[in-house]
Amino acid sequence: MKRPIILFGGASYEHEISIVSAISLYRTLSCQSLFVFLSPNHHFYLINLIDMRAEHFASGRYRKNTKLFLTRGGFEKRGLIFRTQIDGDLVINMVHGADGEDGTIAALLDFYAIPYVGPRIEASVLSFNKLFTKFLAQSSGVKTLPFEKIRRGGAIKTPYPFIVKPLRLGSSIGIGVVKSEADLEYALDAAFEFDSEAIVEPFIANVSEYNLAGALANGKWLFSVIEEPQKKEMLDFDQKYLDFARDGKAREADISGDLAEKIKEEFKKVYNEGFEGALIRCDFFAIGGEVYLNEINPVPGSLANYLFNDYESALNSLIEHLPQGRRIDVTYRYIHSIRSQKGKL
Amino acid sequence: MKRPIILFGGASYEHEISIVSAISLYRTLSCQSLFVFLSPNHHFYLINLIDMRAEHFASGRYRKNTKLFLTRGGFEKRGLIFRTQIDGDLVINMVHGADGEDGTIAALLDFYAIPYVGPRIEASVLSFNKLFTKFLAQSSGVKTLPFEKIRRGGAIKTPYPFIVKPLRLGSSIGIGVVKSEADLEYALDAAFEFDSEAIVEPFIANVSEYNLAGALANGKWLFSVIEEPQKKEMLDFDQKYLDFARDGKAREADISGDLAEKIKEEFKKVYNEGFEGALIRCDFFAIGGEVYLNEINPVPGSLANYLFNDYESALNSLIEHLPQGRRIDVTYRYIHSIRSQKGKL
Repeated sequence: MKRPIILFGGASYEHEISIVSAISLYRTLSCQSLFVFLSPNHHFYLINLIDMRAEHFASGRYRKNTKLFLTRGGFEKRGLIFRTQIDGDLVINMVHGADGEDGTIAALLDFYAIPYVGPRIEASVLSFNKLFTKFLAQSSGVKTLPFEKIRRGGAIKTPYPFIVKPLRLGSSIGIGVVKSEADLEYALDAAFEFDSEAIVEPFIANVSEYNLAGALANGKWLFSVIEEPQKKEMLDFDQKYLDFARDGKAREADISGDLAEKIKEEFKKVYNEGFEGALIRCDFFAIGGEVYLNEINPVPGSLANYLFNDYESALNSLIEHLPQGRRIDVTYRYIHSIRSQKGKL
Repeated sequence: MKRPIILFGGASYEHEISIVSAISLYRTLSCQSLFVFLSPNHHFYLINLIDMRAEHFASGRYRKNTKLFLTRGGFEKRGLIFRTQIDGDLVINMVHGADGEDGTIAALLDFYAIPYVGPRIEASVLSFNKLFTKFLAQSSGVKTLPFEKIRRGGAIKTPYPFIVKPLRLGSSIGIGVVKSEADLEYALDAAFEFDSEAIVEPFIANVSEYNLAGALANGKWLFSVIEEPQKKEMLDFDQKYLDFARDGKAREADISGDLAEKIKEEFKKVYNEGFEGALIRCDFFAIGGEVYLNEINPVPGSLANYLFNDYESALNSLIEHLPQGRRIDVTYRYIHSIRSQKGKL
């Protein structure tokens, strides 16, 4: 069986969520994983299993751990003279938010030819930006709520109540419900603290929400159960944070087989080949029998382990069938042919 | 004055174009630049100025040059004991196609906190994928030709004549004009050799095409002249390749002031803050007085030096006002507060 390296942390507003998420996965997996922490300053550290506690990171004690460096095919330790590559056959990207979900980690791992579980660059950019998620849904024939993109000071046409979300953040950061003009200024301030653009959508009280995680491995769909997340009006950051520490199992939503099938069909449309290699969670609304995509989590909290009945075998199937990096043969045939034509260059 | 590191090469079908492009820039710039070559295997080499000839790369002799490694703030040489960072205050990304324009180089440079001229990750992904370019145009209020996305074996609704383009490549690779059914199979084979998806657009014979390069630096627009590129029916790869070696100046298109103004307005809409830090070239069509975006080149050939009357001062303005990397302060306040609530974690 392949040995994964769990990569977590990152220079992101969701840095702490990623730590909690990785700890939750650590408690779940029975296989021998390695844990690599990405500090807010973009240094990598190899974390001893005994130190996989939130305290170790919050206290800064991780800085005493062995520093690692990216190299072709993996991470290496550097001694005074020798460099040695650490074990581990692939990386599981558990960095939430910036770095992990904006395409940075994907690019690093692609560049250094390290196989990984996680979204590739393009899928990252599409799901990180709520406007592009709308585009992706539109071009895949998946419904979403109507929306408008706004900048600070711009007029809003959507009638109350509505939700304001910063364009590029996950985990409910900066998201606010605006029921009347009284809430508006605060919600806009909160959203524009994190991005120069925001998206406005109608707020539908008591809308049914369903989460489904899954992946495509070797042509087979690996689906979790469908969960109806418990919620107050909306999960705020603190609640979601606690939610990310989940290691109990989710309860399957009590819905018709038809609706469950529809949700899976919409998931498949969203998860096109762009998401190959990633285990993602899609959050849907169901309104009047129709299914709407709310958001795509390309690096879901705890990598959605709590949603699966048999998580390890799903994860292992995915690990066994990760995309191969592209290989481009450079032949220099243009330079050769032009040199022979022009006798120079 | 700041000293740039010109980064070129890359694991891309446009590897050779990038070499020619960098040589052209080398011949143009008077400032003391450094040249770093990215080999098809993703190794970096410091290239002596005397070796900035196509032959040096085609022959593989670059492998005898000093290897470089990415490190925080730049590139370093590694001796037996010491590591020394090379000079250079910023990178100019001249890697065309994959790596340079798909977000990989952007992510690497962002991650290692190296300032650079070039598109950031999001702008790269948007301009690399012709479908997303349509989305970007649409959401910015810029016209494009109608299109359809196809897969191998899918029906095509666009009437003849049309153009088939692979979804994700630049430099005319895999692009073909289909005038009748006789041309179809060859064009599809050519396109699908490079991508699993392609885009089909109506082909308009003798359409007026205009290229404009530019950047936004410190709130000021730096525009090139507008050129009407000479063409046969369409530039193929060989022609474009030669075109990338251009170091003569472009001739300004003979168009009305109104049309020139319109082209600049459309450029400004496309070049939103996502392109900050990049010097891009937009290719437009003019049809019946209206301007249509054809494509965005976020790393244009020869970095478009031949289009500018005073290239060095434009480039220097941009270099002086590159975007700062984001800094996120991680305070661990959630972990601290949850620990104090729960007394554990």
